[in-house]
Amino acid sequence: MHAYRSHTCADLNKSNVGETVRLSGWVHRVRDHGGVLFIDLRDHYGMTQVLCDSDSPVFAEVEKLRSEWCIRIDGIVKARDESLVNAKLPTGEIEVYIRDMEVLGSAKELPLMVFGDQEYPEETRLRYRYLDLRREVMQRNMVLRSDVVASMRKRMWEKGFREFQTPIITASSPEGARDFLVPSRLHPGKFYALPQAPQQFKQLLMVSGFDKYFQIAPCFRDEDPRADRSPTDFYQLDLEMSFVTQQDVFDTIAPVLGGVFEEFGGGRKVDAPAEWPQISYADAALKYGSDKPDLRNPIEMQVVSEHFAGSGFAIFAKLLEQEGTEIRAIPAPTGGSRKFCDRMNAFAQKEGLPGMGYIFWREKSAQPDTFDQIVRALVGSEEYDKLREQEAEGMAAEGKLKILEALDANDKEKVAFLVDAYFGEHEAAGPLAKNIGPERTEAIRQQLGLGVGDAAFFLGGKPKQFEAVAGRARNVIGTELGLTDENRFAFAWIVDFPIYEKDEETGKIDFEHNPFSMPQGGMEALEGDPLKVKGFQYDLACNGYEIVSGAIRNHKPEIMFKAFEIAGYPKEEVTKRFGGMVNAFQYGAPPHGGCAAGVDRIVMLLADEDNLRDVMLFPMNQRAEDLMMGAPSEPTSDQLMELSLRVIPQE
Amino acid sequence: MHAYRSHTCADLNKSNVGETVRLSGWVHRVRDHGGVLFIDLRDHYGMTQVLCDSDSPVFAEVEKLRSEWCIRIDGIVKARDESLVNAKLPTGEIEVYIRDMEVLGSAKELPLMVFGDQEYPEETRLRYRYLDLRREVMQRNMVLRSDVVASMRKRMWEKGFREFQTPIITASSPEGARDFLVPSRLHPGKFYALPQAPQQFKQLLMVSGFDKYFQIAPCFRDEDPRADRSPTDFYQLDLEMSFVTQQDVFDTIAPVLGGVFEEFGGGRKVDAPAEWPQISYADAALKYGSDKPDLRNPIEMQVVSEHFAGSGFAIFAKLLEQEGTEIRAIPAPTGGSRKFCDRMNAFAQKEGLPGMGYIFWREKSAQPDTFDQIVRALVGSEEYDKLREQEAEGMAAEGKLKILEALDANDKEKVAFLVDAYFGEHEAAGPLAKNIGPERTEAIRQQLGLGVGDAAFFLGGKPKQFEAVAGRARNVIGTELGLTDENRFAFAWIVDFPIYEKDEETGKIDFEHNPFSMPQGGMEALEGDPLKVKGFQYDLACNGYEIVSGAIRNHKPEIMFKAFEIAGYPKEEVTKRFGGMVNAFQYGAPPHGGCAAGVDRIVMLLADEDNLRDVMLFPMNQRAEDLMMGAPSEPTSDQLMELSLRVIPQE
Repeated sequence: MHAYRSHTCADLNKSNVGETVRLSGWVHRVRDHGGVLFIDLRDHYGMTQVLCDSDSPVFAEVEKLRSEWCIRIDGIVKARDESLVNAKLPTGEIEVYIRDMEVLGSAKELPLMVFGDQEYPEETRLRYRYLDLRREVMQRNMVLRSDVVASMRKRMWEKGFREFQTPIITASSPEGARDFLVPSRLHPGKFYALPQAPQQFKQLLMVSGFDKYFQIAPCFRDEDPRADRSPTDFYQLDLEMSFVTQQDVFDTIAPVLGGVFEEFGGGRKVDAPAEWPQISYADAALKYGSDKPDLRNPIEMQVVSEHFAGSGFAIFAKLLEQEGTEIRAIPAPTGGSRKFCDRMNAFAQKEGLPGMGYIFWREKSAQPDTFDQIVRALVGSEEYDKLREQEAEGMAAEGKLKILEALDANDKEKVAFLVDAYFGEHEAAGPLAKNIGPERTEAIRQQLGLGVGDAAFFLGGKPKQFEAVAGRARNVIGTELGLTDENRFAFAWIVDFPIYEKDEETGKIDFEHNPFSMPQGGMEALEGDPLKVKGFQYDLACNGYEIVSGAIRNHKPEIMFKAFEIAGYPKEEVTKRFGGMVNAFQYGAPPHGGCAAGVDRIVMLLADEDNLRDVMLFPMNQRAEDLMMGAPSEPTSDQLMELSLRVIPQE
Repeated sequence: MHAYRSHTCADLNKSNVGETVRLSGWVHRVRDHGGVLFIDLRDHYGMTQVLCDSDSPVFAEVEKLRSEWCIRIDGIVKARDESLVNAKLPTGEIEVYIRDMEVLGSAKELPLMVFGDQEYPEETRLRYRYLDLRREVMQRNMVLRSDVVASMRKRMWEKGFREFQTPIITASSPEGARDFLVPSRLHPGKFYALPQAPQQFKQLLMVSGFDKYFQIAPCFRDEDPRADRSPTDFYQLDLEMSFVTQQDVFDTIAPVLGGVFEEFGGGRKVDAPAEWPQISYADAALKYGSDKPDLRNPIEMQVVSEHFAGSGFAIFAKLLEQEGTEIRAIPAPTGGSRKFCDRMNAFAQKEGLPGMGYIFWREKSAQPDTFDQIVRALVGSEEYDKLREQEAEGMAAEGKLKILEALDANDKEKVAFLVDAYFGEHEAAGPLAKNIGPERTEAIRQQLGLGVGDAAFFLGGKPKQFEAVAGRARNVIGTELGLTDENRFAFAWIVDFPIYEKDEETGKIDFEHNPFSMPQGGMEALEGDPLKVKGFQYDLACNGYEIVSGAIRNHKPEIMFKAFEIAGYPKEEVTKRFGGMVNAFQYGAPPHGGCAAGVDRIVMLLADEDNLRDVMLFPMNQRAEDLMMGAPSEPTSDQLMELSLRVIPQE
């Protein structure tokens, strides 16, 4: 018999009854049932109930076992009593009577229980990660991660891509984030850098004639830690292709990711890759307040400036007199209650706004549904002829006049609304509605396609200044109202990113995203207004996360130099920063493009976790420390000497 | 039609004749055949002959094309004239008449030609790697590498392993080589390290309950560069398993690697994995002078001390009076010529030895083959009876006496040899043979199983001091004599490595290999003579390269502390150096083991290259510089400031 096991802890069933077997694993739980010790023995594959009665020659030793000891047992498989069969467990039909036992590894008192659902502080979990990882959910997450990555590889291979490993110890490549540096021992005073992404290398691969590249690539950014990113290294499914257009890249990666989400989505609906919408960057900002919109949420924001210009709501009316300002509405179907609107107002205040204007349309009783009924309900039928004969200025209320006009126009809907607005109990409520009056309110309602029981929220100013909050409000509204379909993965390509942005304060023009994208319209476009130039650059959003980013690259040196010149980088600077790539482009560069998908984030979405660290084996904590391994640590003075470095003492 | 291509440069054949197609690729070669321009258009997939006659609307532009320009052409597929069909080329049946052409990327004057076989200095190749990589052999090597890695993954998955990514920015883990350090910005004065291998993490994974781990893992060692290693990062197929014995690890990895060699070996013979011999470390040193023997070479060295002890060859005889010395022979079948022996002697001198003793057995004319013939040849038949009657001391020559003794013993073989040695033209030649005399020479011949036409070389001293040279001599002999089968991949497991070695000078005992291996015999063994303790530690050699190294790990904290104590490391030191792992072992560690296979080296073997850099995309040069990307480089003072570092000026 094998030294450690004849079967795993998931293998045994009724067909093994009577066999002498050997199992190894961890003591998940011990229960003492009146002199019979029941042990749930656990390994990576499953759990088997093993038991030891006082007849067993090793009873005394088994009695000493505690949770998480690693043991080997020999025993005899017996069928469980019908009534004790556990249908949920693959091994639930049997139990194993221990005849021999060996402690393979004992355990000290546990700082963290593997059994059960107790929550522990993250520091404890990371310091004792090897215990934390034994827990069922963590085993599942790590297996999921591994399977997702394997599936990505298989799908890329099927598409004719080959994986190539690009260097990890390489040159600094300034791409926005901060590099991790690695001092060179052989070249004192000089440093290597860890790649923020294999961007330059994958482009060099295209120049080298490798048509289709991909890599599950480690990327390194020395960024200040945040809950949703790893403070050191993370992984991307990185790909690049030659002789392609933007649509070719979409057609390549969309089925790969769509397939992965289908495979591991646990039955949640996955939008069909061919139907992922392409939304311009400008539209995404307007409709969703985000360049990574969550399309599970059906809410689309709209510009409603015209209804507030010159209106009685002075804040917005005045705001709109400034150039570049807008009022946008967030429709909130089914949000039509003061309670909800107040909650959203509080949300806005938490986000640092003075508040968020709103209108909601209250539920109302049955409405008149014919022209005659309206008239009757309003003035009584005897009054009708009389009113029509009277002069307009003779009427008591502005409302009546309007109603009569509407009656003349035979506009039943408008009559109904006005009746309600001026005379009914039921109304468009909220301070805004009062300030702008019923007609503007109604125009807004019609534009937004809302009805009674719905609400709308309003934000105004320069879009850049409120778009992000609007986007977050949209998310909260969608979630709180149950509009967002939690059982769906919804995707959207965001396209037409602007190449440049203008710094509001300095007026300086700089790259909005990475500088390697081909401008739409090429050299000609660059000779016009740079702020109007869009790039062949794109992101893929899923459920509100950016999961892919990419571009068709600028492979023409002259267009590249021009693009950098506009952002204020002279030729020499470009050559210095990106010399490897720029030189290469002068030796027959093919048109090429690609993208990179965030592996960690995709796994997080599939695992339904909020924290990247829950889908990584051995992550750093938020202070970029590994408490288990003791990193970072102080080097020896010999090490520093070899690297010709001295640490500057902190004050 | 697609913007860049309707087909690749490998797609078109007779079935496409008449079609209008679009191709993109590089101008491999242009030939001007009297006003018709023939271009070999190349992409990653193949080559297509395109041509342009003066009727083409783009003739003038096509005339300007030069090698390695990247172009797009539109044209009409025509069948080649029967006589011009190129059967070697998949597209050899057709050619494409250019009707339109676009330059996608022009090229400056080339520092390195892609077309042809011209050799360039490595510095040129690395500086313009993107051109070097376009060459056919490099494209093939990189594709091979990618396919080998993919095959490894598939084979590991099939065996139930999952790939897990372990951290790259982590703690220093002193394992023999020098770490690359990464300064921490958030923790001034502290450093991370890049892993020399994921050793501790993979062991932690086993403690975490992941039963079968593998990873195509980047490894980092700051070593002084050498031709056969990368000065920075390299890749291993790293694996680890729980609840296994040494044989389980062999049974897992052997079919994976054997399968890879079968798949990519290009028809060369691959030893069947089940038959890979297990050779002890001691035997490997003795027989092959190496712990990574090349078994394609059938030569096995032997100890021949007894034949030299007290012999007339004073150097060896005296040497053997010292303790711990040995004489070893390298048999060299078919090496029996003075010319060859002298060449090997010169080799030994180049290796720093005074020379290498040898004996060779010269080819001789037809030999007497019956007892009677021998006697006749020797003394004439009339003499025979006379001689037998004479007294021994009366005889003229010692040789005759011996022959007579042999004749008495009816030992035909010995007689034949002695006849030859003393009286024939044909002899065991070389200075050694003269010194030790024919009997010892003959005994050696018999032990080594050599015959006429063969040679043997001799080295003496303390084995540690000459084993390596002996091993190299064995290699040269095998190659020069054509004994080594170049069309074979020959594998051997090297097992039973000693855990400790003794420093000859200081007498200090230290770990011979990595300190994490389980000693054979466990704690009990450690309580005896440490120099006799062997580990469950193993290597796999292929064709003279170590391609795998591994061990069953020491997972018991008390045995681990004891093992380190013997090597002079107190408990605190162990906890400090390997704290992550040692702590983990106290919480129910399973027995586990594994190995790591060198990906770069395996690909090098399969590609039949001698230089690791020819199977890596963007390697550093031998001074650990990347001239293409400009790494390492001087950091900005801001970067140094952020890291709280100062560079110590060089004197």
